[in-house]
Amino acid sequence: MVVNLRSKKADELYEIKGTQLYVGQAGVKKRNHNDLTLFVLSPETKVAAVFTQNKFSAAPVQICKQHLNAKNNIRALVINTGNANAGTGQSGRDNALKICQKVAEKINCDVKQVLPFSTGVIMEPLPADKIIAALDNIKESYWDVAASAIMTTDTVPKAYTKRIEVEGNPIHITGIAKGSGMICPNMATLLSFVATDAKVSQQVLDSLIDEVVEKGFNSITVDGDTSTNDSFVLMATGKTNAKIIEDINSSEYAQLKLALQEVVTELAKSIVRDGEGATKFITIQVNGAKMHQEARQVGYSIANSPLVKTAFFASDANLGRILCAIGNAGVEDLDVSQIQLFLDDVLVSEKGGVASQYKEEDGQRVMAKPEITVQVELNRGKEKATVYTCDLSHDYVTINADYRT
Amino acid sequence: MVVNLRSKKADELYEIKGTQLYVGQAGVKKRNHNDLTLFVLSPETKVAAVFTQNKFSAAPVQICKQHLNAKNNIRALVINTGNANAGTGQSGRDNALKICQKVAEKINCDVKQVLPFSTGVIMEPLPADKIIAALDNIKESYWDVAASAIMTTDTVPKAYTKRIEVEGNPIHITGIAKGSGMICPNMATLLSFVATDAKVSQQVLDSLIDEVVEKGFNSITVDGDTSTNDSFVLMATGKTNAKIIEDINSSEYAQLKLALQEVVTELAKSIVRDGEGATKFITIQVNGAKMHQEARQVGYSIANSPLVKTAFFASDANLGRILCAIGNAGVEDLDVSQIQLFLDDVLVSEKGGVASQYKEEDGQRVMAKPEITVQVELNRGKEKATVYTCDLSHDYVTINADYRT
Repeated sequence: MVVNLRSKKADELYEIKGTQLYVGQAGVKKRNHNDLTLFVLSPETKVAAVFTQNKFSAAPVQICKQHLNAKNNIRALVINTGNANAGTGQSGRDNALKICQKVAEKINCDVKQVLPFSTGVIMEPLPADKIIAALDNIKESYWDVAASAIMTTDTVPKAYTKRIEVEGNPIHITGIAKGSGMICPNMATLLSFVATDAKVSQQVLDSLIDEVVEKGFNSITVDGDTSTNDSFVLMATGKTNAKIIEDINSSEYAQLKLALQEVVTELAKSIVRDGEGATKFITIQVNGAKMHQEARQVGYSIANSPLVKTAFFASDANLGRILCAIGNAGVEDLDVSQIQLFLDDVLVSEKGGVASQYKEEDGQRVMAKPEITVQVELNRGKEKATVYTCDLSHDYVTINADYRT
Repeated sequence: MVVNLRSKKADELYEIKGTQLYVGQAGVKKRNHNDLTLFVLSPETKVAAVFTQNKFSAAPVQICKQHLNAKNNIRALVINTGNANAGTGQSGRDNALKICQKVAEKINCDVKQVLPFSTGVIMEPLPADKIIAALDNIKESYWDVAASAIMTTDTVPKAYTKRIEVEGNPIHITGIAKGSGMICPNMATLLSFVATDAKVSQQVLDSLIDEVVEKGFNSITVDGDTSTNDSFVLMATGKTNAKIIEDINSSEYAQLKLALQEVVTELAKSIVRDGEGATKFITIQVNGAKMHQEARQVGYSIANSPLVKTAFFASDANLGRILCAIGNAGVEDLDVSQIQLFLDDVLVSEKGGVASQYKEEDGQRVMAKPEITVQVELNRGKEKATVYTCDLSHDYVTINADYRT
């Protein structure tokens, strides 16, 4: 199921000058199905990326990091689904490089100017030859087609687009993402590719990606598992007529960051809305923390608790489970008598127990909704964090028990 | 479902001289059902206990700690099911004390010599009056009846018993436990009460509980949630004819510890075998770690991964998910190329990828079994840890979605 996710229509997604998209069928896992995507970037494009923190990072992640460190201008991104090329050792890296080499020959650049991405089953050999053969027959395509081509267990494509004006000149941002399981902070089994025609320095691009990923992909969780393949790439082609942004303290930077944050947060939320088996979309706001990290810990402890998640699935106002999750967050010297817990606008708990005016029917009314906000007031500081998650349903078990069949 | 759990028969459980057990019906949640247990201890009994690390610890846990700190000889334990008396604030503590007071009057001791325990739904007021009334009608009973009376979502009672001889004199240990959900280290929603007729100093008892809990209740996980109510109590009545054990370096101490470890580990494993919805019992052995804590982290990362757990449920050899969980364990400088992964005796992965001799059918053969050992060789040190867990099934979701109905 999908919780209130309306994907953008194809004709609503802005094209980004300086990017060309191609989609093809390599038959990695299934035949007659788009499973191969190629981005070709104009030579001036600047690229920044963040990757999974998982120590068993996939072969393509390792190659991406090498190629980005080599400081070559990145000219292409190649993405396959159906196989993650993770837990595949040296042969996995060899396969990823062979695919990069093929792309490099095709567009006449160096192999180090190509970034590879894979998503799908872990610890199975990547059929690189199938992908290389398919690259000969790949067709120029559109953002919305690419959004579908990068899907695995996703039930809907995820895309978002935004246009701003800087001193009368438009800047466009368009992004796509995939992922619905193995979703947890420090990147999820998510791949996301966001491009803008903004003209920015590399330093500004690096700053932008760090800033937007925190409130975007690093604020979501479906199941607490962090994948081996998570990658988020931000590309700036510089094809706008707006002036170059080189100062992170400028108002243009702030404007671009705000727009980019919207794109990335909406993509991140769309992944949770399409979380494996999701029937509810939950926003967890934690306020009054001493440190930002503490607020995040509490948010994630609630978001990842299987007992909280099954209570949401059941629409059961068994809200003591949220208190229990707060108590488990590992916050030192937490005075639980200071904590207030709200479900939407309903004060559920304070002074370490049930709020005096709380009525079960009020909690039940909120729990029945498809979108719910949990608000925790720690009342011990000024820091806050927001985490997005979904419930844990029978379908989560079904999807993940049958994934390879 | 229960994985290979055979509970001891009533006539196999040794009575422990110096303990008297009573069981009754308070109707806390359900009528005509044993939900109240009372242990009365002979005056010389020494008591040690460990409790949940959850910051939202339940009212009875708070009272237990106060009463144990007061250094009074503990004379009674009173346990109710159906309501956890957690997230209940000051009125929760008042209710727990009222119950202790009733027990104190009944057996003629001080209120501080009574320890209260509760398990069940969180954040609902405890019907203390029902429990107090039921204490007037409570009947003397047996360990196996008490093992059933402390159950909540458990499907079978959990008990274990052991007899050793020290210089020709027998020492007996008998324990019971409950818990099947909200099970994670630093205690689970588990209550466990273990008594021995051994004669020991308080210092020896304190040392024993610390040592055995680590490889017992602190080495299991069902769902990664740590409850508000976890309590493990160790009682030594001193009624044996064997001599007093006062030296933790003596061979008698070692002998008693070994027996007690067996009782506690078997009780802990029986909780996992009866884990909510469990269809598989998984032992995770992590060897070759630099530090014990690191080995535990890896073990728990595997044991708590929903994707690993659903793969076990499906008997699907999707073993890359185990690599992914190892990579997520937060071990610094982990060289994944050094790691070996075994499933029972099958070498699945080495050198960062699939082992060359690994065949899917071998993995599949092991995955089909009801009991599976995952062995991880980190090859970076000499420390090790074992964690016990179960799979994640449809029934886990069903049980926890319907818990209050």
